[in-house]
Amino acid sequence: MDKEKFIISKFQNKFIGDDGAVVGSYVYSKDLFIENSHFKKEWLSFYEIGRKAMMVNISDAIVMNAYPKYALIGLMLPKNTSLSDIVELNKGIKDSCLKYGIEIIGGDTISSNLIGLSVTIIAKTKRPIYRKALKDGEILAFTGNLGGSLKGLKALLNGGKIGKNSRFKNIILRDKFFYKASRYINSAMDISDGLKSDLPKFLKNKDIKLRYNFNKFEFNSGEEYEILFSCYKKNIKALKNIAKKTRTKVTFFAEVKRGRYRKYGKSEHF
Amino acid sequence: MDKEKFIISKFQNKFIGDDGAVVGSYVYSKDLFIENSHFKKEWLSFYEIGRKAMMVNISDAIVMNAYPKYALIGLMLPKNTSLSDIVELNKGIKDSCLKYGIEIIGGDTISSNLIGLSVTIIAKTKRPIYRKALKDGEILAFTGNLGGSLKGLKALLNGGKIGKNSRFKNIILRDKFFYKASRYINSAMDISDGLKSDLPKFLKNKDIKLRYNFNKFEFNSGEEYEILFSCYKKNIKALKNIAKKTRTKVTFFAEVKRGRYRKYGKSEHF
Repeated sequence: MDKEKFIISKFQNKFIGDDGAVVGSYVYSKDLFIENSHFKKEWLSFYEIGRKAMMVNISDAIVMNAYPKYALIGLMLPKNTSLSDIVELNKGIKDSCLKYGIEIIGGDTISSNLIGLSVTIIAKTKRPIYRKALKDGEILAFTGNLGGSLKGLKALLNGGKIGKNSRFKNIILRDKFFYKASRYINSAMDISDGLKSDLPKFLKNKDIKLRYNFNKFEFNSGEEYEILFSCYKKNIKALKNIAKKTRTKVTFFAEVKRGRYRKYGKSEHF
Repeated sequence: MDKEKFIISKFQNKFIGDDGAVVGSYVYSKDLFIENSHFKKEWLSFYEIGRKAMMVNISDAIVMNAYPKYALIGLMLPKNTSLSDIVELNKGIKDSCLKYGIEIIGGDTISSNLIGLSVTIIAKTKRPIYRKALKDGEILAFTGNLGGSLKGLKALLNGGKIGKNSRFKNIILRDKFFYKASRYINSAMDISDGLKSDLPKFLKNKDIKLRYNFNKFEFNSGEEYEILFSCYKKNIKALKNIAKKTRTKVTFFAEVKRGRYRKYGKSEHF
């Protein structure tokens, strides 16, 4: 058992396994976004740091079919952070809040050697979508194109530069498609660790195999924040319509069959 | 304007100024507890780190007169953290949760150079207590003894050792007194930065002076997590009774009078 699994096992609770915890009609999610763990300082502007920290958290609310309402923000900032950097960071956070109608209701600021944000999103939902055990015949799909984030990360790790629209810098969330599509969707999660390590988490039941060959997809790219979901075959048409209307690419890539799930080796984390 | 004030001004929202944000009957609070900002690794055991991170957050819920129910926990842990350290950290967190009936509902774990916890507490209240502007004649009081935390911190900064019951290591919260006393209390906050810097925050109105001489109190000691509160004079007797019943020391130390509040120099942060 690796260390992360050990930690998760020690903190086991009935909510674990989903992107957020549902209590009544609220969905709570919390993700850290910390220098040297998620990014190098020179890779992102302060604006981009603020925006990405918010977007990875908003993503959790969306894939639970919840509307983000409030945010609590913990800020770790080095003592030498300039006032203009703070203004930029704040703008990155605020722009994301504005886009999704989120009100910042509290938080904490400390000086630290590392730049870091801890974001808690409080979202509301009438019908949360969980990661459920899949049934025979269900279809798996994902939104968008995979691979952009890994491509950006590789360029950065090699000392290169990436454009401001690289997926690594600028996450695109699929809320427009997903909220409309939610009534046709059985189970969902965001692709944050790469399909290779997220897919086994999604396939909670152990006796499943996937019918399609999908070597053509980018399996290793994490931090895509595209949505992996399942639906019944009869709903594919409705979903394709919503995808078209919301100009969202959706790839239906596999069908659930009883059998053993084929593993794809060890996942690679940054 | 110092940098912290600048940051707070940029993130200004209508909830700022209280220990938690009240939304409906819920109170949300979030504090970071990060190595080298709040503690040195060698000062606290992993058990003590977990416990203190929880207690400083639970404190925020209590002083809002709210009962903590759920927690989200973001963990930053160095790659070389041993499994037994993780077990200890978990035990420190869990013991505090058990004591206050808190259920952990989610969180996030990442590897980082720094040990750190970001805790969000979701609490319930029927009658939140805010930091309100004080009225002429109101009495100020605080629970417990001040100074223990600073004494511990000074010993540690001088390379000394402190006992496991030092206030710096082991925070005592005044929930038993405070929940019972809440109906007699007008305004409250926890003493996290020391009375010297917390008192001006508490005295929101600018035209106040305090009647008593209180040079005998420890003004500089932060992280006490004793409670600073205000009440009407007529309620002192009832509060003294509750203090006696719950074996809680309470010091009524000042009376609010119109006039200018006397400043006590610059506050010192660790």
